[in-house]
Amino acid sequence: MTQAEYNEIENYMLQQMQDSAHDRHHIYRVLNAAVDIAKHIDIKDTDVLLAACLLHDIGREKQFADLENICHAKIGSEMAYDFLLSRRWAPQKALHVKECISAHRYRGDNKPQSIEAKILFDADKLDASGALGIARTLIYQGQITEPLYITDKDGQIIIDGGGAETSSFFQEYNYKLKKVYDSFFTEHAKKIASERQKTAVDFYNALFNEITVNYENGVKSCIALLDE
Amino acid sequence: MTQAEYNEIENYMLQQMQDSAHDRHHIYRVLNAAVDIAKHIDIKDTDVLLAACLLHDIGREKQFADLENICHAKIGSEMAYDFLLSRRWAPQKALHVKECISAHRYRGDNKPQSIEAKILFDADKLDASGALGIARTLIYQGQITEPLYITDKDGQIIIDGGGAETSSFFQEYNYKLKKVYDSFFTEHAKKIASERQKTAVDFYNALFNEITVNYENGVKSCIALLDE
Repeated sequence: MTQAEYNEIENYMLQQMQDSAHDRHHIYRVLNAAVDIAKHIDIKDTDVLLAACLLHDIGREKQFADLENICHAKIGSEMAYDFLLSRRWAPQKALHVKECISAHRYRGDNKPQSIEAKILFDADKLDASGALGIARTLIYQGQITEPLYITDKDGQIIIDGGGAETSSFFQEYNYKLKKVYDSFFTEHAKKIASERQKTAVDFYNALFNEITVNYENGVKSCIALLDE
Repeated sequence: MTQAEYNEIENYMLQQMQDSAHDRHHIYRVLNAAVDIAKHIDIKDTDVLLAACLLHDIGREKQFADLENICHAKIGSEMAYDFLLSRRWAPQKALHVKECISAHRYRGDNKPQSIEAKILFDADKLDASGALGIARTLIYQGQITEPLYITDKDGQIIIDGGGAETSSFFQEYNYKLKKVYDSFFTEHAKKIASERQKTAVDFYNALFNEITVNYENGVKSCIALLDE
């Protein structure tokens, strides 16, 4: 791929991206992580990897507009395929990019098969590990107007029941972020994620503790201040 | 204050609150923190403290609709005063609540004077400390569609220049969250914040490091993959 061809794909991607959690910085982090992982592996097709990284989230805006019915991996893979054919890519290579993108999603049933697809999956999941995973999830919760946590009738934080497109941060952490460290295909990505894991666990535990201690120390004192 | 009077103020507050970072859980955490701080201090008027805590953010929705021109502390203090007068509070007590609310904002020039105003300020600022401060700021960044970070022409994260109503998380951290630990009036709040500080610092440093290492390891390799 030449610089001019790269720029053309990049420009198409930038036209499709506007929201902030899955903003263009996420795309470049995935691209950087993917080429870093690729240095440790003998991959067949760097053009496919670069294009798949740049285009992997171009379906986000359409999913965001209809969270219940549209999967960004599926629609994005079709958009990428059509775009690359229009740029005179060989159908077989464009199809490989399509397969990488359609299989990059954590929630999907469609698992990555080729090494390029596995690298994209790992590079994308690295951005859900560590402090980055926490930060991006919280920004996304704000975008879809979902809360940090919800409580049960006893004032306790509900931590299960996540996984749908909409839930609290605590539910999303337990559904996805906590488990992402077991989902990697490549050794290099697994190593990076493992180094990041303690930050995420420490942060989650501290957050849980701050909220719980505040509740326990305050709620009874508050009731005690009210007149009979 | 009776339970019925408390419920009436609480119901009025709930009618005014909808967004998620400054949602009702934040109000109850501030209330819990305030009564916890108050246990360590001889305060004069618990009714004023309870009402000020419950009502301190009722101006948020109006500020959110016009970030440039409306300060939620000022407008909220006026709304609270009018509401309490309508519930037949003595004007002097309602005015005290108004003064607490108008002085609770970190960005404001209006500093808290009474002990009740200082406790509200501290209880609210505790929610900007530790993991809670990080989490709430990130959710708010998502709500106002602001990014995690922006970079300069060399790809480095810009960390100064925050403080306006809109900026990146990294700018907001350096403008407010990093400094909040020096802003407390009461010893008890200072102690709680100090215990929470390490989590926030560790998280921020890890986030900075993850982004920087990803960039440094990836960007040159990416350029190297392109054809001449």
